[in-house]
Amino acid sequence: MSDVRAYGAQSKASGVAPMPIQRRALRADDVAIEIDYCGICHTDIHFVENDWGMTEYPVVPGHEIVGTVTAIGKAVTQFSPGDRVGIGCMVDSCRQCSACDDGLEQYCEQGSTFTYNGEDRQDGSRTYGGYSESIVVSERFVLRVPDALNPAASAPLLCAGITVYSPLRHFGVTTGSRVGVVGMGGLGHMGVKFARAMGAEVTLFTRSSEKVAEAKRQGAHQIIISTDQADMEAQLGQLDFILNTVPVQHDLNPYLSCLKRDGTMILVGVLEPLDPPVAGGALIFGRKRLAGSLIGGIPETQEMLDFCAEHRIVCDIEMLDIKHINQAYERMKKSDVKYRFVIDMATLRV
Amino acid sequence: MSDVRAYGAQSKASGVAPMPIQRRALRADDVAIEIDYCGICHTDIHFVENDWGMTEYPVVPGHEIVGTVTAIGKAVTQFSPGDRVGIGCMVDSCRQCSACDDGLEQYCEQGSTFTYNGEDRQDGSRTYGGYSESIVVSERFVLRVPDALNPAASAPLLCAGITVYSPLRHFGVTTGSRVGVVGMGGLGHMGVKFARAMGAEVTLFTRSSEKVAEAKRQGAHQIIISTDQADMEAQLGQLDFILNTVPVQHDLNPYLSCLKRDGTMILVGVLEPLDPPVAGGALIFGRKRLAGSLIGGIPETQEMLDFCAEHRIVCDIEMLDIKHINQAYERMKKSDVKYRFVIDMATLRV
Repeated sequence: MSDVRAYGAQSKASGVAPMPIQRRALRADDVAIEIDYCGICHTDIHFVENDWGMTEYPVVPGHEIVGTVTAIGKAVTQFSPGDRVGIGCMVDSCRQCSACDDGLEQYCEQGSTFTYNGEDRQDGSRTYGGYSESIVVSERFVLRVPDALNPAASAPLLCAGITVYSPLRHFGVTTGSRVGVVGMGGLGHMGVKFARAMGAEVTLFTRSSEKVAEAKRQGAHQIIISTDQADMEAQLGQLDFILNTVPVQHDLNPYLSCLKRDGTMILVGVLEPLDPPVAGGALIFGRKRLAGSLIGGIPETQEMLDFCAEHRIVCDIEMLDIKHINQAYERMKKSDVKYRFVIDMATLRV
Repeated sequence: MSDVRAYGAQSKASGVAPMPIQRRALRADDVAIEIDYCGICHTDIHFVENDWGMTEYPVVPGHEIVGTVTAIGKAVTQFSPGDRVGIGCMVDSCRQCSACDDGLEQYCEQGSTFTYNGEDRQDGSRTYGGYSESIVVSERFVLRVPDALNPAASAPLLCAGITVYSPLRHFGVTTGSRVGVVGMGGLGHMGVKFARAMGAEVTLFTRSSEKVAEAKRQGAHQIIISTDQADMEAQLGQLDFILNTVPVQHDLNPYLSCLKRDGTMILVGVLEPLDPPVAGGALIFGRKRLAGSLIGGIPETQEMLDFCAEHRIVCDIEMLDIKHINQAYERMKKSDVKYRFVIDMATLRV
C-alpha cells in the first residue's frame, strides 16, 4: 500500500478538498498509473453531494482518467511503463457472466466495480477515483490512449465519449443515417462529432438559438430550436435515430414525432421516471423504439479511442487547476463549460 | 352501387342496429365478397361509442372479415369467385410511399384507408365494415384464407392475430427465445399461440390465478401472477421479449425489470400516455428497448395466415347471432369472452 495525494469529499457539506488516500500494492495483473489528466463528469457532483443516497464518504471522484504507466504486475502483458493509458467508469467486474463474456462489463450481472465509491472485489477496500496523483487498476480495465490524441482532451472520452459512441454503434448509425442529437453539453457535443464521423447527417436539437453557430462548428448539418413550433414540425418523421443526452426530465413525445417509421430514440442521460409520460401511441404508430444505453464496455471503449485517433476526434475542454474544483462544480451546475472541465493533475503535485 | 343489409350505429346512443348501406359497383381491381364471419374487436366498441372523438355516424364496424368471393373486376388476377378470403383493418393506402413499398401499408405516410369509418381514396365515399352481408375491396387488400383453417375462427386473425404476429416476427422471436406475454385476452392468447409456434419459451403474465390452467392450455410454458411479488422477482432479467397486449394504462416498470440485457418490450395495446411513467433507468441499465407496433402489413398478414395453416392455429372464439351484438359489447367490456366474439353473418340474412 502506498500513500497518494488526492482531492475528495469527506462529507456532503465539505466540498472537494485535499486528502490522502492509499493505493494498493500491485497485484500480478495490475497496472500502476500516474494520472496526468482527469475529466469532471456530472456524476462526480452527484456523488460528492450524495444526490443518489449511495455515497460512502470519503469519496474521491473522477472516472475520466488519462495517465502514464509507472509499473506493472508480473502477469501484465499488454502494457509497459511509459505507456499512455486511460481508465473510465469501471475498474472491475465479475468476468464470468454473459455480459462480461460479451465485453459489456457495464452490464455485468453481478454489478461492475466502479472507479470510485466502489468496493474492490478481492479485498473489499474502497475504490477511489481520478482526482488523485495515481491509481492501480487491473490490466483488463486499462485502455490504450493512441499517440495521435491530445491526452488532456482524451480524458472525457472515457465516460462522455463512450456513453454516446456505444449506442450510436450498437443501434446501427452508419453512412447516410439521419441522426438527431438532443442537448449539447459534454455528451451532446461528442454525439454530434461521432455521428458526423460515422457518416450520418446530423441534426442538433437545442433550446438556445445562441448555440447555432457553435453546433455548426461541432459538425451539425442542421440545428433545430426545440422551442420553435415550426422548426419542430418540419422535422416530423425525418430521423432514423435520436440520441437524447438530456440528463433531466423533459417531454420526449415531440422528439419521438421526429423519428421515421422504425426509428430509435436512445436515452443516455435521464434515469428518472419519464415525466411527462411517453404516449404509447407515439411508439405504436410508426413502430418506433425508445431505448437506453449505459456507458460502454472495455473492448468498445478501446475501439472508440482508436476511432477517435483515426478521425482526429477529442473532447472540447477547459483545463482546470485542481484548487478550483469547487468553483468548477458551481459553473457546471449552470452549464457554464464548453464542454468538459479537465483537471491538470500536475497542479496537484505543486 | 347496390344495397346491402348491415348492422351499425346511427349515433353514440343508438347502439348497433340494422341499417342499409350501399356498396360500390366493381372497379377493375375490386373483389366483391359475401361476408361469412366477422370478428368483434374492442376498436369496434370505441368507434360505436365515439370514444376517440373521430367517429362519423352512421358507422358500420367490423375489420376481422372472412368471406367468399362472389365477383371480380376485370383486372383482378389473384382471386376467383368461390375463393375464401379475408379483409383486415385496411382497404387501401397511398401505394406510393416507402411504407407501402415495403408492404407495411399500416404505416402509410399518407394514412391508410381503414375498413370502416374511413374515406374511399377515389370517390370520397365512406367505408363500411364487416357487420354486413358483403363488401367490395381492391384486390391488393384481400387476403387468401387457407382451406386448412376454420373460417369463423380465422376471422380474428385479421386484426388480433396480425397485431401480435407482426411484432413477434419483426423484433426477432425465434426458436429458443424467452417471450413474456402480458394479458390474455383476444390479443394475448394469440400471442401465446404464435410465440409457442415460433419455438419460444412462453411466459404468460396475468393478474388472475384463475387463468393458470387456461394459459397452459393455450401453450404457455409458465404462468406468472403479476400481483405476486415473489413470482415477479423470480423473473428479473429472464426474458428476451415481452409482448404487452394490455390496452389500458398500467405500470410497465415491473415488466421491464423482467427483460434480459438488450431485451425488448413491445406495446400493441396502450395508446395513452404511459402513466405511471417508465423510468429512464429501466431502459438505460440493461440497454433495453420499449417499442410499439401497429397491426401488420398485407404481405405479412398473408404470411401469418399461411403460418396459421401450417401450425394449425386459429383464434378461440364464441359464435354470435348478430341480433345479440349489443349484449356482446356489454360482455366484452367486462372481459367476459374467450377470446373473441365472431358474428355468424348468416344470422343477418335470416
